[in-house]
Amino acid sequence: MYYTDENIKNLKRIYDQNSRKQYVRLDLNENPGGLDENFIEQTLKEITPRLISEYPETLEFSQSLADYLKVDLENICLVNGSSEGIRYIIEIFTSVGGKILGVVPTYAMFEVYSKMYGREFVTVSYTDELEMPIENILSAMTPDIQLLILVNPNNPMGNAYSEKNIKKIIKKAKENEITILIDEAYHYFYPNTFLKYALNEENIFVTRTFSKLFSLAGLRLGYVVGKKDGIKLVQKLCTPHNVNAVAMLFAQRIIEKPEIIDELIEKHKFGRAYLISELEKNSYQYKGENGNFIFIRPKTDADEIVDIMRKKYGILIKSYDGIGRFGKCLRVTTAEKKYMEKFVTALLEIEKSIN
Amino acid sequence: MYYTDENIKNLKRIYDQNSRKQYVRLDLNENPGGLDENFIEQTLKEITPRLISEYPETLEFSQSLADYLKVDLENICLVNGSSEGIRYIIEIFTSVGGKILGVVPTYAMFEVYSKMYGREFVTVSYTDELEMPIENILSAMTPDIQLLILVNPNNPMGNAYSEKNIKKIIKKAKENEITILIDEAYHYFYPNTFLKYALNEENIFVTRTFSKLFSLAGLRLGYVVGKKDGIKLVQKLCTPHNVNAVAMLFAQRIIEKPEIIDELIEKHKFGRAYLISELEKNSYQYKGENGNFIFIRPKTDADEIVDIMRKKYGILIKSYDGIGRFGKCLRVTTAEKKYMEKFVTALLEIEKSIN
Repeated sequence: MYYTDENIKNLKRIYDQNSRKQYVRLDLNENPGGLDENFIEQTLKEITPRLISEYPETLEFSQSLADYLKVDLENICLVNGSSEGIRYIIEIFTSVGGKILGVVPTYAMFEVYSKMYGREFVTVSYTDELEMPIENILSAMTPDIQLLILVNPNNPMGNAYSEKNIKKIIKKAKENEITILIDEAYHYFYPNTFLKYALNEENIFVTRTFSKLFSLAGLRLGYVVGKKDGIKLVQKLCTPHNVNAVAMLFAQRIIEKPEIIDELIEKHKFGRAYLISELEKNSYQYKGENGNFIFIRPKTDADEIVDIMRKKYGILIKSYDGIGRFGKCLRVTTAEKKYMEKFVTALLEIEKSIN
Repeated sequence: MYYTDENIKNLKRIYDQNSRKQYVRLDLNENPGGLDENFIEQTLKEITPRLISEYPETLEFSQSLADYLKVDLENICLVNGSSEGIRYIIEIFTSVGGKILGVVPTYAMFEVYSKMYGREFVTVSYTDELEMPIENILSAMTPDIQLLILVNPNNPMGNAYSEKNIKKIIKKAKENEITILIDEAYHYFYPNTFLKYALNEENIFVTRTFSKLFSLAGLRLGYVVGKKDGIKLVQKLCTPHNVNAVAMLFAQRIIEKPEIIDELIEKHKFGRAYLISELEKNSYQYKGENGNFIFIRPKTDADEIVDIMRKKYGILIKSYDGIGRFGKCLRVTTAEKKYMEKFVTALLEIEKSIN
């Protein structure tokens, strides 16, 4: 009989090819406005026929990125979006039947990859008060866990792990020899980082992406940071030429200009503060201390709001169910003020019309 | 103990970050000149901040590609270079300890992926006369083989499989329930295709790339073609947003303009014919009926030639050892005449200087 992998056969997976072009996209934590047009125009001018026709060269950009992060070249591995790096870490540091620990809710691909590769994804749930007590994670870190994956700050909940708590987690991981992956997709929106642990401790890795604050989701670029021996394993797993030349060019030009990054952070901060003040003014409950997303408890039906928001206002947001005392609620990407204004206006009108 | 996958730990893999920018690149079967500058300029003009900042949308391009190939949308899965598609086919249709059959020499990643995933890569060798008798493949297709991978035409040997022979292979594969992957990386240089078998028979897949004739290696784009059920499995395995927006934009603009493809084919044909006439004029033995590469049996030492060619002439080519009666020989990418002139001039001078 033809052999087909059972885990893949049984895997439930949405292959979404839908078009979102016509919408204001506040559903996937992207930057809905994108980078400054002049910067894009200038960077595009550097693209030559050879840059496009030759297999991508990673050395120059990798070295720039290493310098930018103040790490060695051998501490980083470029990946085609951090999701590829997460996948590789799972492939290397867990076995068929092995256990991966995470919190719930979190980035959906942890569970998808676990199932894809026949691993078991074990979860710690948030409390009804939408909190993640560190003790609950620690007590779930039993010796049969091979890998712990955390997003810091966690999407969609927005909580960040404190330095003190991450130290407790690392201590427990060492005792039980559990590899740790910390996904810092939302770093730069949130300033603290655990990079130093990835650089100094065995079996701790950090993934980062250029898709969020850096606004390059369409180009696909991320990286894994870790000690040299660990990174060598990740490099071994890479599909040849996994990162493209245009992504590296744009990423390089951004990290060379800290003012671009500062401006992106400022614009986001301003837009987010505006949204929060409007939510408070209108007595909304919300959650999301960090990151470029926020949970909002609507006064009417979340699914109905999502639907009307898309059809009537051309704005995409997401609904989540079972979020503790919030129950069904909305998750909205926070962004530049003009997009937050559109969203708030729509939300207030929709809730009024439903009521 | 921290778990680490043994196959990955033991895998030998070169993580090449070297710079090739300053060279004429005739070593990796790219188009050394790249696409027409005007076309590139026009296409770059379409890139907006949003195209870069939003997660890539695949529907529009996938539909265009399906139309171009005269297949249904559900028959194709886009991948980040065909090498990613090859990897997915191996992951789905073979098991740990399972056997994958290929010829030798061929594309190196088949063996690398086999080792990465704990599969055994079983090979059929070319004869001393550099031929691949079909009987040798057929007799190696025993029931314990799970997957047969062929490149058509095969790199680096240049031989193509005839319609008659592929039918024999398919018949044998059906009898022994062996999945077949045919990599058509060099299609368009070589006109015949086995796409129809991938579309009509169970467990036959074709991979294609935009890196070769289409000259988009720097952008990373390929695809897998097969029956809908099989493609669904490949889609399930994809890392989210695995193909980038700029690659899809360029690929779309190329397939919309058949004259670009025709011109690329013509330029290559002309350059290749020039190279072959020069090789014959200078009494070189060569092999490579199809594709954009050719084997040349040098009169002096292949490694020395490769070395001087790079250092003195700034031209990159490859050497191969153990190629039947050719022994050690050169593999050179065939391309536009101006690059072939540079190469021939260098080759003749170098061989004269070594002698």
